[in-house]
Amino acid sequence: MSAPTTAKGYGISDTSKYTDFSVKEFKLKTPEAHDVTLHIEFCGVCGSDVHTITGGWGPLSADWVCPGHEIIGKVTHVGDAVTEFKVGQRVGVGAQVYSCLKCDRCKNDNENYCPEQVDTYNAKFPDGVESQGGYSTTIRTNDQFVFAIPDALKSEDAAPMLCAGLTVYSPMVRNGVTKGKTVGIVGIGGLGHFAIQFAKALGAHVIVFSHSPNKKDDSHKLGADEFVVTSEEGFEKKYFDKIDYILSAADAAKIPLTELMSTLKIGGVLTSVGLPDEPWHEFSPGAMNPNASHINSTHIGSKKEANAMLKLAAEKGIKPIIDQVLPMSEAGKAIEAVKSNKVRYRFVLKNDLD
Amino acid sequence: MSAPTTAKGYGISDTSKYTDFSVKEFKLKTPEAHDVTLHIEFCGVCGSDVHTITGGWGPLSADWVCPGHEIIGKVTHVGDAVTEFKVGQRVGVGAQVYSCLKCDRCKNDNENYCPEQVDTYNAKFPDGVESQGGYSTTIRTNDQFVFAIPDALKSEDAAPMLCAGLTVYSPMVRNGVTKGKTVGIVGIGGLGHFAIQFAKALGAHVIVFSHSPNKKDDSHKLGADEFVVTSEEGFEKKYFDKIDYILSAADAAKIPLTELMSTLKIGGVLTSVGLPDEPWHEFSPGAMNPNASHINSTHIGSKKEANAMLKLAAEKGIKPIIDQVLPMSEAGKAIEAVKSNKVRYRFVLKNDLD
Repeated sequence: MSAPTTAKGYGISDTSKYTDFSVKEFKLKTPEAHDVTLHIEFCGVCGSDVHTITGGWGPLSADWVCPGHEIIGKVTHVGDAVTEFKVGQRVGVGAQVYSCLKCDRCKNDNENYCPEQVDTYNAKFPDGVESQGGYSTTIRTNDQFVFAIPDALKSEDAAPMLCAGLTVYSPMVRNGVTKGKTVGIVGIGGLGHFAIQFAKALGAHVIVFSHSPNKKDDSHKLGADEFVVTSEEGFEKKYFDKIDYILSAADAAKIPLTELMSTLKIGGVLTSVGLPDEPWHEFSPGAMNPNASHINSTHIGSKKEANAMLKLAAEKGIKPIIDQVLPMSEAGKAIEAVKSNKVRYRFVLKNDLD
Repeated sequence: MSAPTTAKGYGISDTSKYTDFSVKEFKLKTPEAHDVTLHIEFCGVCGSDVHTITGGWGPLSADWVCPGHEIIGKVTHVGDAVTEFKVGQRVGVGAQVYSCLKCDRCKNDNENYCPEQVDTYNAKFPDGVESQGGYSTTIRTNDQFVFAIPDALKSEDAAPMLCAGLTVYSPMVRNGVTKGKTVGIVGIGGLGHFAIQFAKALGAHVIVFSHSPNKKDDSHKLGADEFVVTSEEGFEKKYFDKIDYILSAADAAKIPLTELMSTLKIGGVLTSVGLPDEPWHEFSPGAMNPNASHINSTHIGSKKEANAMLKLAAEKGIKPIIDQVLPMSEAGKAIEAVKSNKVRYRFVLKNDLD
């Protein structure tokens, strides 16, 4: 049986009606020798899906979009040059589906920073076909952007790792999070609840900084050593010069940035992941020059990092806390929950289209 | 002869009349065993002086202030515990005159990041005495904040190194500027014209990014390998993924930050030195996440770095381009030139009070 040329997915065409999903048929990219086609089983619901379908990051790039970039499925077809994957194998696809694969970045495990990188949805493959995401039956892409899933991980648990997990794992390893380091985590949602677990699994002493005390129990269960409520005046004083690295998964414009930066050791780094709808106002070098600290932002992770993350998750029993696994036809319900900040900590959709 | 208890300096008491200097007498800090007293010969005129006496960084901390923190003079008195300096020796004092000298930062060559650090003027010593700067006859402080000046450096050339030079030298060495690196310099004024020279002396390939072409000849004379005019649309494209590190001495709110950041290699750093009167508006993680780059800011440098800088300057013949050496009584003229951005590249004042 030859590889399919079309698929079906749940899509949004009007960003003002971002919960009104309807089933649409769409074209898959032209099959190539390194392509893997998979039949989708699960897809996580990510904040990026909401930013995109609400128009927060700007207008849609095409008439409609099928979101979803935390995809788990089974391989149905492989191109002639694919050696890593076999038909029937369980695999995943994250937030990136293409890059040039020739530039220095691609050749040095930085394909996630290739200037020709293609997002999993709301973008275009080099053949001109619109990329569509995982709230759908099928996805096809180059094997560089397909990850083997260790047997120890359940599919619904592995799905959210492919964007939320990788987005926090990559900056932590790139910024030296390891045994003996003290790491702060800010923003305990889909990303942050993975960040606590990965930081702990990497050997760090983990301190959660949270606006309100209501995530305290969860944070400790996930592995946090300390929990600090940032709405208490002067919360940062006790932690002055104590922290090697901070990972913030919160909207940077809404966190006490200057106070958090003051907890960093000399030259320490705060990585703000995710991309808010609004720029940061009122940010000043004065937040960094008392300790020569750095602000950093990163974009998902490389395949090498994804494989290392999945291995670590399998070894250490890391998994998301899932609110609900819903059929894809109820995507609007999950989107509404994310939009209104009611998710603890991830919704996962199950394919009900075929 | 015992150490003096008072000194005279040129001061400002009304930030709206920031060129109206008048001579005032002031108290020197209580002498201690580690103190060095110097008779001032020269003092550079720094942007910080202008930010302070115009009220740009807020109201004055006392009734009046004598600015100046690029000080060269001769030692007139040393405390009993001073071993590094002798009476008659030529020495310098920069932008910091005190720290606790006990904390981890102080003990690890980061005394410039000590939370109890005292600025050279517009601040207070632990004994309650107001610190006053170098537009004056005399300064006394702890020997940690006094630097020996190599014979090869002229006094008027060495003065501006003690703030302007150190402020750019320290972040460069902390961020790995060395042989084989490609370094961008932004903002060719008092700080930037030292940054070109130190980056070159450290072995880097130096690219100046400047708003206008009128600093091109000077930049090349100072050692720049390339000069790029940033007002030309798309200037950054040729430098995509080429630059290891950028030092910006310009007001960060006024530079093409996103375009400059795009020239950095993966994980590259842009350090913005100096502290503008206004915060940065419209800054977004989107400027950093295409290449996992970092924004950093730093505060002067340590004594260890100051000594290394002065040694390098002496070895490589690094010196400032001085507009004019004026008598201190003409400080207002120099301040006006800095305020109206007409300095190329430093004014130095010569003590005419005694």
